[in-house]
Amino acid sequence: MVRQEEIRINTQDRHETHDITSRVAEIVQKSGIKTGIVNVFNVGSTGGIGSIELERGLAHDIGAILDKFVPPDGEYAHQQTAKDANAHSHLQATLLGLSLTVPVAEGRPILGTWQQIFFLECDVRPRRRTIIVTVTGE
Amino acid sequence: MVRQEEIRINTQDRHETHDITSRVAEIVQKSGIKTGIVNVFNVGSTGGIGSIELERGLAHDIGAILDKFVPPDGEYAHQQTAKDANAHSHLQATLLGLSLTVPVAEGRPILGTWQQIFFLECDVRPRRRTIIVTVTGE
Amino acid sequence: MVRQEEIRINTQDRHETHDITSRVAEIVQKSGIKTGIVNVFNVGSTGGIGSIELERGLAHDIGAILDKFVPPDGEYAHQQTAKDANAHSHLQATLLGLSLTVPVAEGRPILGTWQQIFFLECDVRPRRRTIIVTVTGE
Repeated sequence: MVRQEEIRINTQDRHETHDITSRVAEIVQKSGIKTGIVNVFNVGSTGGIGSIELERGLAHDIGAILDKFVPPDGEYAHQQTAKDANAHSHLQATLLGLSLTVPVAEGRPILGTWQQIFFLECDVRPRRRTIIVTVTGE
Repeated sequence: MVRQEEIRINTQDRHETHDITSRVAEIVQKSGIKTGIVNVFNVGSTGGIGSIELERGLAHDIGAILDKFVPPDGEYAHQQTAKDANAHSHLQATLLGLSLTVPVAEGRPILGTWQQIFFLECDVRPRRRTIIVTVTGE
Repeated sequence: MVRQEEIRINTQDRHETHDITSRVAEIVQKSGIKTGIVNVFNVGSTGGIGSIELERGLAHDIGAILDKFVPPDGEYAHQQTAKDANAHSHLQATLLGLSLTVPVAEGRPILGTWQQIFFLECDVRPRRRTIIVTVTGE
């Protein structure tokens, strides 16, 4: 059995985080699938999907650590070849990952007590995001 | 067809690695699923799942490189907001990834000769870990 | 329903990128699966799979950023224990990820307009690569 739905998010700022845990859980529940996996995928390569304790502090830290590693004001070949200023957005999202697969048991995603599924905007301008949630199982 | 089982691990120290390849392979074999995928997921956001040649040297290097990038003694907002000293644990685990999906063929996970599936403890205290293994296929 | 096929690639140089989007799409189409997920996995732990806008600039940047983080001429325990000079190859591939799972809708992988699935060679010598593509769904 497979069920697929979209989550739509409008973002304003770089490094906004969105907690999508309850929306993913709702899609899993509606699917009627009791045991299996749920894949959460951001369409587009400048936004990432991860899992963390998404309180205010870590929501800030995740963006800060990616900036330390892939600085927004760094030199990237993408600027020359694509005349685009968001090389860091692509690189940060790819390193975080665009896709997360979580097990489903008893009709719910299995997560720790302090564990949320989040979307991280890495682009430099407001975006309309589509996140595809696919539940597979029985 | 879907089969799901747990692997339980007790950890003592930060950056302990556990080779879970043979336990994953056993669960795949028992499932009777010949072709498909197997998802390996750590419940909780301070431990990661990856794949590497898990000899003693690289088992050390993976922790060392994460420490270089996300230093345990760095400044993190999480310390202020959650009064918690393990921001680096969350960040390291998220960057490594909490979830790995491996193909299954002829009733076995497909891996390279020198490729193991490992769990990396990133937390700062002993933990009882539950890793969910979900096999999907036919 | 499950369908599984291989993509074979010969690589010559470290940090070669290969756009495998159209080959993945072809396997999905041939599978007859309309809705589900497709898992793309590199067999072996010194090559990674990711998703990015794979124009010439970013294809360079992704390798450069991994080298900054995990320098090829760094000191790694793997050199001592395994007498092997490619510790950085394992670490870079693990951090990028060896596995990517993308949703399938209407018989095609769902990707953004400027989003490709790529293989990144991280090893230090020419390799024959096998990438397993597994489509699950209905």
